[in-house]
Amino acid sequence: MGIAIISPGRNPSVWIENMKEIDKEIDIQVFPDIVNKEKISTVMLWQHPRGVLSEFPNLKLICSMGAGVDHILSDDSIDPSLPITRIVDEKLTFSMTNYCIMGILNHHRRTSRFTQLQKSKVWDMSSPEIDIQVGVLGVGELGGDVIEKLQLMNFDVFGYGNSPKGKLTYPYFYGEQLNDFLQNVNVLVCLLPLTTQTENFLNLDFFKKCKKGTYLINVARGNHLVEEDLLTAIQEGFISGAMLDVFRKEPLPEDHPFWEEEKITITPHIASVTNPKAAAPQIVENYKKMLNNQPLVNLVDRQKGY
Amino acid sequence: MGIAIISPGRNPSVWIENMKEIDKEIDIQVFPDIVNKEKISTVMLWQHPRGVLSEFPNLKLICSMGAGVDHILSDDSIDPSLPITRIVDEKLTFSMTNYCIMGILNHHRRTSRFTQLQKSKVWDMSSPEIDIQVGVLGVGELGGDVIEKLQLMNFDVFGYGNSPKGKLTYPYFYGEQLNDFLQNVNVLVCLLPLTTQTENFLNLDFFKKCKKGTYLINVARGNHLVEEDLLTAIQEGFISGAMLDVFRKEPLPEDHPFWEEEKITITPHIASVTNPKAAAPQIVENYKKMLNNQPLVNLVDRQKGY
Repeated sequence: MGIAIISPGRNPSVWIENMKEIDKEIDIQVFPDIVNKEKISTVMLWQHPRGVLSEFPNLKLICSMGAGVDHILSDDSIDPSLPITRIVDEKLTFSMTNYCIMGILNHHRRTSRFTQLQKSKVWDMSSPEIDIQVGVLGVGELGGDVIEKLQLMNFDVFGYGNSPKGKLTYPYFYGEQLNDFLQNVNVLVCLLPLTTQTENFLNLDFFKKCKKGTYLINVARGNHLVEEDLLTAIQEGFISGAMLDVFRKEPLPEDHPFWEEEKITITPHIASVTNPKAAAPQIVENYKKMLNNQPLVNLVDRQKGY
Repeated sequence: MGIAIISPGRNPSVWIENMKEIDKEIDIQVFPDIVNKEKISTVMLWQHPRGVLSEFPNLKLICSMGAGVDHILSDDSIDPSLPITRIVDEKLTFSMTNYCIMGILNHHRRTSRFTQLQKSKVWDMSSPEIDIQVGVLGVGELGGDVIEKLQLMNFDVFGYGNSPKGKLTYPYFYGEQLNDFLQNVNVLVCLLPLTTQTENFLNLDFFKKCKKGTYLINVARGNHLVEEDLLTAIQEGFISGAMLDVFRKEPLPEDHPFWEEEKITITPHIASVTNPKAAAPQIVENYKKMLNNQPLVNLVDRQKGY
């Protein structure tokens, strides 16, 4: 019983290499060139064609090839009894955290202003820092690490999630406490999982609840953000600017207004790119655990959506 | 016996306010409007006119109004037996460290490249990170904090100073080991004190010893850097770019070639600005210790130069 990689448009060879290095006997096939679909017990998915899993009658395990699983949960045709695992990778966390801190620091230290001053050859020492309090939406592996690192750097940080938590080292708000949370912060980092509850979470109504001039960083998913609402919120001053790494449609279409909005910094979904070297062993591990009926690691809770 | 503030061109009112808040009896006078210079025991200095201290016959203590003391040590007319203190301020460290980390992350995550891509409306996910190893020149209060924070963020960091140290949590090189140090790093942060030994430290000969394409951040003093040598080193590829907060002449003259060099990011000496609220109490404390013949805090070692 082998593994199928279903990740159209991407070269899977680094994945295969790293998996074979652990166990050269594993049977790995690459979609769409799969013979004997009934012999596939495990699929590795990234942006798979909807409905394609129905072609595999003996599936036992679905592995996301990244940290997110919204691409899997949003495919209604997938048997809901199948276990789903995701990648938890220190390097993923390292990159995500450092991207967020970079965005936060560039806002805090007014990089765009100093870039303009350099262009005009103007030496202006006034107001070199913006006093910031950072709010992190979503306090899972990634959000939790951003909070931890910002605390170590002596910034004020607040967390927000959908459920109560045990004792934490930072002020935490959840559910209906959103307004209280937003009144404490003027920089927001969105690291929410994408679920039916969090889709379109960042909308005009939300922006109106923020402290005037709040700065937004979205590194989660494009579908968290109602894009036209962000433009309105910036025009009306609710939001002072944004750094966005994810978009509803990727690549971001050439005629999208975000490209030309000076207050929006765009990066092409590179905040944190899954590293096959670190991720492949996790998939092999789960594949073997599944074969031996052992508990899986980094198992996704379908109800929670992550 | 009172205190004189000698800091031409700057408004000392916040300093006076904060000092009077601690002890409203202290006699504080502001240069050049000082009556009875013989009654001044303590001077607070920032960019004082050379030689001016010879007008004060009863000086007992010199306080720098910032972290640096090169402006005092370079004035040969000052009695070398007078004690000099400097400011050590957590907020100074906070700002300096965060400025350095911002510069490092913008290089690491290729901010300038993504800014260009956004201007051209190009979605290009390739090579989103540069693999970096950071070297910090000068491992005092400020350099040590940059190293500590970068380690917490899981970056590889190396330190360099002029003398051996006890046990450290990071690889440390000193004196003649400069070449070894430079072969380990491709990002350099200069936080050296300015002394006769470190003036012009960053020169073409130094740049040629760096790993090809090393990135430079100078937040120490303008006189550490031979400015025309940096331009040559960038043109010849020894150095890939630089972020500079300090310059030999400040404000940076309008016709200076740095303004237009795309590979150089300029900020107007704002990496870390002394906060009178935090600094004033240190000066009052030392003033009182001096009056009571107690050991001073943050005393400068003239031989070391910091």
